[in-house]
Amino acid sequence: MTIKLYDLCGRDDRRFSPYCWRARMALAHKGLGFDAIPTRFTEIKDIAGGGHGRIPVIDHDGTVVADSWAIAVYLEETFPDAPGLFKGEGGMAAARFIEGWANGVLIPAVAPLIVKDIHDIACDEDRDYFRQSRESRFGKTLEDVQAGREERLEFFRGVLMPLRLMLRSQPFIGGESPLYTDYMVFATLQFSRVASPFALLDAEDPVHEWFERCLDLHDGLGRAMPAAV
Amino acid sequence: MTIKLYDLCGRDDRRFSPYCWRARMALAHKGLGFDAIPTRFTEIKDIAGGGHGRIPVIDHDGTVVADSWAIAVYLEETFPDAPGLFKGEGGMAAARFIEGWANGVLIPAVAPLIVKDIHDIACDEDRDYFRQSRESRFGKTLEDVQAGREERLEFFRGVLMPLRLMLRSQPFIGGESPLYTDYMVFATLQFSRVASPFALLDAEDPVHEWFERCLDLHDGLGRAMPAAV
Repeated sequence: MTIKLYDLCGRDDRRFSPYCWRARMALAHKGLGFDAIPTRFTEIKDIAGGGHGRIPVIDHDGTVVADSWAIAVYLEETFPDAPGLFKGEGGMAAARFIEGWANGVLIPAVAPLIVKDIHDIACDEDRDYFRQSRESRFGKTLEDVQAGREERLEFFRGVLMPLRLMLRSQPFIGGESPLYTDYMVFATLQFSRVASPFALLDAEDPVHEWFERCLDLHDGLGRAMPAAV
Repeated sequence: MTIKLYDLCGRDDRRFSPYCWRARMALAHKGLGFDAIPTRFTEIKDIAGGGHGRIPVIDHDGTVVADSWAIAVYLEETFPDAPGLFKGEGGMAAARFIEGWANGVLIPAVAPLIVKDIHDIACDEDRDYFRQSRESRFGKTLEDVQAGREERLEFFRGVLMPLRLMLRSQPFIGGESPLYTDYMVFATLQFSRVASPFALLDAEDPVHEWFERCLDLHDGLGRAMPAAV
């Protein structure tokens, strides 16, 4: 009863989705075997019986769960004896705020820096869809969105301040060891690491050290996916 | 054995410190009686035996605890049978991230919008100190820092996005009921409410509704402090 994870893929089987990486890390945290099925953007509508617009989606013996948050909660409730993803009621509640930060601040800060690179590593079949949907969202070409990113890097690094201040007190958002809160933030930076050669983090930044620790977790699951070059 | 809370005060006994409000709400959450002793900026060096540079500081039967985070942890550990401030290990760990956001993002976003107003409600004895220390920090006059704030309001409201997204799922950062995470964020907006007549929140914003809920907590402790007019 291996769990199926429908996982966004690019060319050369790159797995870069910031939402799928949350589910992948959550499955690994729980010690669950899973089969991460490569899925192109344009294939999503056909997975797991159809009707899905986004991934991750998991299929656990016929129980289909969509949405990264719902997947984390499903895993926590279905496998209560496996290591906890939230460590308590307060942890799960606060994780919703951190999800809001990851989705509402971090992803919108990362995406414009790498959106043309994402296009370039997307599968051939996905490129037209990706360009059209993202150019419509941004109101300009992918090339124009990404242009001048070097000048915007300092602003981006400022966005990481909450994490940087927290790291003065503890090595993970989860405290002494990582929890789902770490995975939500890690996943967004992993998205960039896999999709783009543009270095978001300063090597001297404590956030960089935290990211490296996260790459090593669960037998180096994150590091096993090669960085873009 | 009432706990003494050394609490920053302005003229007309206004209590406006975003850090003292964290301690005040934490004490109320625990159901503890406390005496919030009005303390001017320029008196801080003399409180609780001396040696303190900032408040809040509490004195619990001779045990002196400084720093709002340390106070919350002290209360949680000293009064384990009173309502929990963190609801578990994961909640306390994630609260450090939210503290990073409150201190590193929210306070720096609020302060430039109201810094001249804070000066104006400060006690006469504190005004020179306040002006000099803040003008040195900002590198310009308080009047220049605050000027044009109407044009910066939309940006400020964007900063609240993590809270706004979270409120789609639950009424408090603590989940169904408030925890210390709510108090850290509430305290910063209360700081503005007490110190400045400038309206930070749009009445239609779910964040405004959450703030109103927080004002009602603990028999309306927050609301009992009049808003600046």
